[in-house]
Amino acid sequence: MHPTVKRMTEIVASGDDSKIIEILAEEVRFMPPTYWKTWVGREPVAAVLGHVGQVFSNFRYRRIMGEGKDWALEFQCKIGDHDAVGVDLITLNDAGLIEEFEVVMRPHSSVGALRDEMNKRVMTDARFLKFKEALR
Amino acid sequence: MHPTVKRMTEIVASGDDSKIIEILAEEVRFMPPTYWKTWVGREPVAAVLGHVGQVFSNFRYRRIMGEGKDWALEFQCKIGDHDAVGVDLITLNDAGLIEEFEVVMRPHSSVGALRDEMNKRVMTDARFLKFKEALR
Repeated sequence: MHPTVKRMTEIVASGDDSKIIEILAEEVRFMPPTYWKTWVGREPVAAVLGHVGQVFSNFRYRRIMGEGKDWALEFQCKIGDHDAVGVDLITLNDAGLIEEFEVVMRPHSSVGALRDEMNKRVMTDARFLKFKEALR
Repeated sequence: MHPTVKRMTEIVASGDDSKIIEILAEEVRFMPPTYWKTWVGREPVAAVLGHVGQVFSNFRYRRIMGEGKDWALEFQCKIGDHDAVGVDLITLNDAGLIEEFEVVMRPHSSVGALRDEMNKRVMTDARFLKFKEALR
């Protein structure tokens, strides 16, 4: 397993999502499961991922597939009472940092619950006033 | 790449989804992106996949990751006017047939469009009268 992917699983397991910023490229692109847009940049992406980490409970990575710069990390979790399964689709850059991070999930109803919860959080997090232009 | 995975990409590229049944295990389990249930059995799963193949347009596999029995096939497609990205999460059995097939996707709105379209098709496909008990 690539050391960045290993570090990613360790950070998630630790519950300290603030460390995720270490392994993000400066111009990282994050595509959420909830809408067809892209967050760009290390700081806003780390902030979004911090909220996701608080919305997901009972999170567990299952299979980790891939090699080189291309990785698929299968996971299961809860969103409130809803069960969910997903995949973190990761692309690393030459420096071994995450330059693309796309998340796909099932089922539809659980992603709806995630969207509602994320909207509430982002709307009340003052940092997102300055991150507005990071959503493209 | 495992020969079954290669065959899967060839069948999808050919547009002849009726051939997918060749590579499904007798007791294959299919978990759709739309709801938290599982279709069980080669015939109903092939029928569901046949409809999915007709709902998706501009379908293209992107990265194929994995080894041995565990595979993640990243794809992009359209559902009507909606863009979508997804992953086919595949588990093979000892005979090299697909025993588990779980699909995760983004974004939420596109999966909603897929759900509506699939409901319409399954409700008007007479085969699904006998497949009722295959949905668990």
